[in-house]
Amino acid sequence: MEESLKVGIAGLGTVGSSVIRILKDKANSLTCQCGRSIKVIAVSARDKSRNRGIDLSDVKWFDSPVEMASSDEIDVFVELIGGKSDVVYAAVKKALETGHHVVTANKALLAQHGEILAVSAEKKGVFLHFEAAVAGGIPIIKAMRESLVSNRISRIYGILNGTCNYILTRMFTEGLSFKDCLEDAQRLGYAEVDPTFDIEGNDTAHKLALLTSLAFGTAVSLDDVYVEGISNISQIDIRAADELGYRIKLLGVALKTDTGIEQRVHPTMVPTSSMIAQIHGVRNALSIQSDLLGELLLSGPGAGGTATASAVIGDLADIAKARPGFQYAPVLGKPALGLAPHKKARISYHSGGYFIRLNVHDRAGVFAAVAKHMAGNNISLESIVQRPFMEGQSVKTIILITHETTEVNVQQALAEIEKDGHLVAKSQFIRIEPMV
Amino acid sequence: MEESLKVGIAGLGTVGSSVIRILKDKANSLTCQCGRSIKVIAVSARDKSRNRGIDLSDVKWFDSPVEMASSDEIDVFVELIGGKSDVVYAAVKKALETGHHVVTANKALLAQHGEILAVSAEKKGVFLHFEAAVAGGIPIIKAMRESLVSNRISRIYGILNGTCNYILTRMFTEGLSFKDCLEDAQRLGYAEVDPTFDIEGNDTAHKLALLTSLAFGTAVSLDDVYVEGISNISQIDIRAADELGYRIKLLGVALKTDTGIEQRVHPTMVPTSSMIAQIHGVRNALSIQSDLLGELLLSGPGAGGTATASAVIGDLADIAKARPGFQYAPVLGKPALGLAPHKKARISYHSGGYFIRLNVHDRAGVFAAVAKHMAGNNISLESIVQRPFMEGQSVKTIILITHETTEVNVQQALAEIEKDGHLVAKSQFIRIEPMV
Repeated sequence: MEESLKVGIAGLGTVGSSVIRILKDKANSLTCQCGRSIKVIAVSARDKSRNRGIDLSDVKWFDSPVEMASSDEIDVFVELIGGKSDVVYAAVKKALETGHHVVTANKALLAQHGEILAVSAEKKGVFLHFEAAVAGGIPIIKAMRESLVSNRISRIYGILNGTCNYILTRMFTEGLSFKDCLEDAQRLGYAEVDPTFDIEGNDTAHKLALLTSLAFGTAVSLDDVYVEGISNISQIDIRAADELGYRIKLLGVALKTDTGIEQRVHPTMVPTSSMIAQIHGVRNALSIQSDLLGELLLSGPGAGGTATASAVIGDLADIAKARPGFQYAPVLGKPALGLAPHKKARISYHSGGYFIRLNVHDRAGVFAAVAKHMAGNNISLESIVQRPFMEGQSVKTIILITHETTEVNVQQALAEIEKDGHLVAKSQFIRIEPMV
Repeated sequence: MEESLKVGIAGLGTVGSSVIRILKDKANSLTCQCGRSIKVIAVSARDKSRNRGIDLSDVKWFDSPVEMASSDEIDVFVELIGGKSDVVYAAVKKALETGHHVVTANKALLAQHGEILAVSAEKKGVFLHFEAAVAGGIPIIKAMRESLVSNRISRIYGILNGTCNYILTRMFTEGLSFKDCLEDAQRLGYAEVDPTFDIEGNDTAHKLALLTSLAFGTAVSLDDVYVEGISNISQIDIRAADELGYRIKLLGVALKTDTGIEQRVHPTMVPTSSMIAQIHGVRNALSIQSDLLGELLLSGPGAGGTATASAVIGDLADIAKARPGFQYAPVLGKPALGLAPHKKARISYHSGGYFIRLNVHDRAGVFAAVAKHMAGNNISLESIVQRPFMEGQSVKTIILITHETTEVNVQQALAEIEKDGHLVAKSQFIRIEPMV
């Protein structure tokens, strides 16, 4: 039997504790599958005295993750602290430079410093694995990096944030307001006390930036992701979408266009009959479109202690099965120094269908004015629904579904309509994502 | 740059030709991702003179795949001949014994000889990869073997045969008969001239046997798969299922029970709202239920030249990235010599809900008799639909949905009903698969 793979874990929250517990509970089976045992021999966390329900008596404690990262005793540094603080970056960098493999669940760190860390890892010939950083327990990274090597990917889109999908699912099924759903999600632990990072789409953007790099062989470029959250989605939007055959999902989408790569995160209309529309609650899903496969869809748990731990241990097992120095493993699919620069396609050039909601004064000529501005900006309409959505008011709601047009046309038409003084509230528009 | 990975391909049908074409078209990108090039240097097929639209001028031709398998010039033997003929088995065995890696798309070979070939591969320390053997381009094998190492799998179920799903989808959407759909599928090339292997469930059974071994760490046991095909599914079944909130799919299901492992392939009622019910046409899908992940679902193209080639090249890329002799890679997840014996759970012990259709004489007392035999066998009913499904005949159809019961109870009740002489045709029953 080969020597154990010796692991140091930094960060002992839900995921870290789960990894330790599972590695112990399933030690025999894992040893059998990996050809050697995987042993946690060191840990580092903020508070040594906290009771985590796991036995740490036989592991070495480090107060500093950076110190553990450079320890001779470990083979793999597992980073489960999270965030892109200096100490986290320093620890991962140090581990790689010391020649240790790294497994991390840290999307923020990689979206910010992914390339430079990948260069370090590749220079040293060690693994930098991050399956747990995107969509928890769904093996998306492995599928894209290893299984789809021969595919030319044209588009990816997915539900990458469980909190948002939970809220949108309940808004649809129970008719609740965004605010009520969010409060419930917080009560149930599906949303943070400060939910901004999730509901404003930033979490999705971080994950999307990593997937975009893997999909297109380009540099990770978080700053080029266009981001809109779900906080201004109303029951009127959800009900109107349903009537017109759509569901509203917060999608992360990346695709190649003639002008560059579109990376966008926003509430999206998807056809009710599409598979992505059937992804309910906290589940995540990713669809990958490519030349050889058409469409591949993976769906499963996007978060949670055990699901994320499952991904971390999958990465550890790959390292245990390989023998150090004898595996070619470019972190982002292609060697980091060979990633193409990210060329951003501006959102104003985005081309697609749009759902537009206008709350207007209920008076003569309003609809004619709306129609004129649409036509004047070359926007042709697929569906029109006009009705009083709120009883007894002198206000009506116009819902439009456009044929394919460009974002700049929509923006221009809406600006003109606003100037006419017909609107009683800010207009709403939601992009429609076509499905195969 | 490392030396090329030298590949010999046996079998130049659609898949083999696609592999050669794609490896050539995408050579630069693959070299970049794998750290060395993947070169086809030898081929073997039946007819050297046939025009396959690919340039074979720079590769060595072997009339015998067995001879190519033992050639010193190749690193990997790719078996795309198919079937479990002696020559195919001999070639794969010879390749492994010579110390070559093997990549195969051959489910029949592996369902029959998987273990003994795995033992050979593991003894020599070479890869025996078979992603393309199950569900074409969907990376199911890699997910189960590598990503889910720490999961205890309790059940898998999936749509593993595109022909059957195509037929059932069209029967549902267009109201066509099984026979008409089959003829159309044959015309369109989705079904073989002799479609028995597909429509009677044998193709699914082969794939299921491999997945069962991976899921539960047990010996491959094709003979223990209970198999029923779709040829006796009628429009009445499909319409009644729809009314009751179900779709009919041909599923392969494997699960652990108290008495052993159930492996079964049969038409199955799945809830209309389930994800598996949304898998249409020739698409495949697999759901994996496990302790850490809950449910993971993968869906995509199950067959076709380029999708299968994508899986073959994914396997080749893994071999190119690894360095010979330095990767621990048990073929079926666990070392073949350590696989547990397969303990079969008999189908008569199967426990679940049932859809039962009885065509009976339209006369007094029939329903009372049916109800009596159900009750007498401890079967309680969830739904009952009774109506004349064929106009103007003295025959009526009774549709029953049972609560959870056992197969032996259902069989006994149906035998008793038959004995009463009320049936005008053979009764139909279809198992219901619960979904999470």
